[in-house]
Amino acid sequence: MLLLLLALVTLTAAGVPSADRYHPTSRDSTAGTPAVRAREAEAGYWYDEAQAAIKARLERKESVKKARNVVMFLGDGMSVPTLAAARTLLGQRRGETGEEAQLAFEKFPTSGLVKTYCVNSQVADSSCSATAYLCGVKANQGTLGLTAAVPRWDCDASTDTTQHVQSIAEWALADGRDAGIVTTTRITHASPAGVYAKVANRHWENDAKVREDGHDPARCPDIAHQLVHMRPGNQFKVILGGGRREFIPTTSQGTRTDGRNLIEEWQNDKVSRNLDYRYINTRAQLIELLSSPPDYLLGLFGNNHLNYHMQSNLTIDPTLAELTEIAIRSLSRNEKGFFLFVEGGRIDHAHHDNFAELALDETLEMDKAVARAAELLSEDDSLIVVTADHAHVMAFNGYSRRGHDILGPSRDLDEDGVPYMTLSYTNGPGFRAHVDGKRPNVTAESNYRDLEWQAHVDVPLDSETHGGDDVAVFARGPHHSMFTGLYEQSQLPYLMAYAACIGPGRHACSGATHVLVSPMHIVVMGAVLTVLSQTFIV
Amino acid sequence: MLLLLLALVTLTAAGVPSADRYHPTSRDSTAGTPAVRAREAEAGYWYDEAQAAIKARLERKESVKKARNVVMFLGDGMSVPTLAAARTLLGQRRGETGEEAQLAFEKFPTSGLVKTYCVNSQVADSSCSATAYLCGVKANQGTLGLTAAVPRWDCDASTDTTQHVQSIAEWALADGRDAGIVTTTRITHASPAGVYAKVANRHWENDAKVREDGHDPARCPDIAHQLVHMRPGNQFKVILGGGRREFIPTTSQGTRTDGRNLIEEWQNDKVSRNLDYRYINTRAQLIELLSSPPDYLLGLFGNNHLNYHMQSNLTIDPTLAELTEIAIRSLSRNEKGFFLFVEGGRIDHAHHDNFAELALDETLEMDKAVARAAELLSEDDSLIVVTADHAHVMAFNGYSRRGHDILGPSRDLDEDGVPYMTLSYTNGPGFRAHVDGKRPNVTAESNYRDLEWQAHVDVPLDSETHGGDDVAVFARGPHHSMFTGLYEQSQLPYLMAYAACIGPGRHACSGATHVLVSPMHIVVMGAVLTVLSQTFIV
Repeated sequence: MLLLLLALVTLTAAGVPSADRYHPTSRDSTAGTPAVRAREAEAGYWYDEAQAAIKARLERKESVKKARNVVMFLGDGMSVPTLAAARTLLGQRRGETGEEAQLAFEKFPTSGLVKTYCVNSQVADSSCSATAYLCGVKANQGTLGLTAAVPRWDCDASTDTTQHVQSIAEWALADGRDAGIVTTTRITHASPAGVYAKVANRHWENDAKVREDGHDPARCPDIAHQLVHMRPGNQFKVILGGGRREFIPTTSQGTRTDGRNLIEEWQNDKVSRNLDYRYINTRAQLIELLSSPPDYLLGLFGNNHLNYHMQSNLTIDPTLAELTEIAIRSLSRNEKGFFLFVEGGRIDHAHHDNFAELALDETLEMDKAVARAAELLSEDDSLIVVTADHAHVMAFNGYSRRGHDILGPSRDLDEDGVPYMTLSYTNGPGFRAHVDGKRPNVTAESNYRDLEWQAHVDVPLDSETHGGDDVAVFARGPHHSMFTGLYEQSQLPYLMAYAACIGPGRHACSGATHVLVSPMHIVVMGAVLTVLSQTFIV
Repeated sequence: MLLLLLALVTLTAAGVPSADRYHPTSRDSTAGTPAVRAREAEAGYWYDEAQAAIKARLERKESVKKARNVVMFLGDGMSVPTLAAARTLLGQRRGETGEEAQLAFEKFPTSGLVKTYCVNSQVADSSCSATAYLCGVKANQGTLGLTAAVPRWDCDASTDTTQHVQSIAEWALADGRDAGIVTTTRITHASPAGVYAKVANRHWENDAKVREDGHDPARCPDIAHQLVHMRPGNQFKVILGGGRREFIPTTSQGTRTDGRNLIEEWQNDKVSRNLDYRYINTRAQLIELLSSPPDYLLGLFGNNHLNYHMQSNLTIDPTLAELTEIAIRSLSRNEKGFFLFVEGGRIDHAHHDNFAELALDETLEMDKAVARAAELLSEDDSLIVVTADHAHVMAFNGYSRRGHDILGPSRDLDEDGVPYMTLSYTNGPGFRAHVDGKRPNVTAESNYRDLEWQAHVDVPLDSETHGGDDVAVFARGPHHSMFTGLYEQSQLPYLMAYAACIGPGRHACSGATHVLVSPMHIVVMGAVLTVLSQTFIV
């Protein structure tokens, strides 16, 4: 039904090309896509939309098979307000009014909400939340793969392996499946590191950082080292992201002071094990390998994070959809299945800088990666879960007319007659001092459509903060309905493990699972059975 | 499981009484409820929490019966960030860290997200959204019960009955069920009026307002008149809220200039039809009637809105839970069932004034009303849906430690060393002019714990704006799983109608409904059937 709706919208809007695909012209109350708007004035339009949606819900089949493959997409800092703003931008880039657009993952059959707080923190950072959504345990801010018994920066405490927690990637590997990680940030950054690292400080990405805090990297190995030399990182078939600098010495534009080149060591390890492998660092190399990736693939496409998509160099920077595609093509060769983690990691960075447009565009890039995964994988045997680690403090201010430029000023003015932006933040670097007791007119700044224009804020901070509000979860594939409700973020890996029948805890494959209502009526091939006791689907 | 968790929290926190139930003392990183925090450091704590939740999901029965009763709770302006902040306040009032608390409706088995935009507006007001969630049609801002073919303020266009749309209350009445409305606002305010009015301007609450806009109330009757004299309002068994002034003449402290007393007319109508009725205007009268309400009950507890709960007069102002209880007791006497609309309407007003604490407290009051309804009604035959009409622009700023006073300043300072609040807004009346180029220190204002202290904002506005982000939906009872996903707000009444088997469109009772996976295995009383074709539960 939603596909149908979008098709209609696209059709009727076809004659309204956008002057600039990133910056549609502002629309007033009478603009937009008149043909769609005219239909929206009919009660039947909304009736049909709702009835088609009900029909789709009823006809949708939920596979109760084991999820052979699990792909988890993580939009770093992708708050609920980010979703509405991003979909509006998506629609407006197509020349539509925008608000009616739907992201690919927003069409998934199940949604839920998760609580992101950590054990010592009201508002999560990306490492304690990664420990929650990957290892099933809430932890202390700044730590990865450790229980909250380990304080941040405590190297000694982190060596107690009874406080190490396994990620869902390790559960998959233990079952003979494959695992991989994909991100737009440094591959050693908090979210991807949550898949493989046990570390008391997320900033120990290289040996120098461990030493800076007064610790011995031999005792508390840095994150890059853990990825290349320790389980589960050294088992990953696919490792794609940025952060080359964390793997190479300072003498080669890297950050390591131990003189080691971990990229070479990763390759030597594969040689010594007689494995098929490849290290790449450009998009061109990636495209070449797309049809037949090596068994082990390491791709580091930037010294630091990958560039924002809207600022990318297409020779060097692959899109997240391309990275996701090669990862899925590679991992799909394991008959037993796989776990893949894909992060749209720079939504968060853009928000921290009050760059609203970049945050939304990075959200749309992750959405394209989700769409690619959904094309490549069957709903019957592959679970796709899309979520965020924490929120941000960007608000979607009222009250513009339908189809009003989501990146522009509100149609209203403030009390002093000064414009304000539809998307703005409560805090961050976008602070402007008052002029004559009033806010300055930000729309008079000639560059307010620049990608790095900062939205206005009340509270001046070097970096905008995370938000403590809940984030959304979307699920498609086997046992997707388990992901609805409002619950602790640390339930997510157990829910995925349930569907995939891996790791600790209850599995969909281990007996009675879905208890339905009782008494009930079941029509089986035309015959009506009245079942008076509990009915199980196994 | 969640009940169990809360029980544990309550138990271990019992020795930590809060000095002031509304204003717990601030906590630093080492405070909180140590016993709970110590358990949270164990991986097993989170494992057990998740496994109990999975077990609860699997054992939960979803009634596939017809929903005899439907109760819709509407938190006006209850944005997603409002939920996280409200639950933290709830926990902190109990002396807990707070973030781990769960509102009663947050424990419902199904959650969803809805898109709130209206036909001519990027960000909804409470009237076009009411038309969506009650009548199933998106409309123009400021209109009620009319399609978007009717522009706001267009009295003539609104007389075209082909553009009138029925609310779910009318669908219920047509099926022989009863209907009622409960709110903390004027009973003629946008949200409750959405249940019964067809009006081109939400502000036409009395005849004087219609005349002010140059129209004849005989042609375009005001909202109070519609409630008392027209269908479906004149059929409602329960009408409880504020707004007495809209029913009485200016000569009696009212707003009507037609000299009519609609409260007397409502009573006369019941007399003429020989019905059992009662008009009340105090909490004391309400309590008296609780055990045996009259067949028809009109309660108007304030000339304007009811007082905020934290500012209420307990002799006059009933709680929303009490209003909800008497409504359910009254309506439950109809064997065929009922539709009840309950609004926590002042969450919105408090947000508009940047009164964070009052907004959260009103949310908690609505939550108590939901809990009361859930106690009085069975999951087996009563659907309860909780949602909001639109968001607001309050953000939950980081990065305070766990258990930090949700109503206090963040533990961090801004770039200039000035404190900022954990809960603040992007716009509204809480604007402060800069002093010497810096934000003033709001925590130095002696009254920052006052109920009407306004959080700081960047954009000075007379009234804080609504937000364009999605709002959450929570559902319990028959067919609750239909409410997950992310979808148009206008689907809500059709989803409720589906479960209740009333109104237009597809019904749960009208044939094949839940299509499950195929092929599948079903265990019926111990016997395993392999069903190779589609299986329907009817």
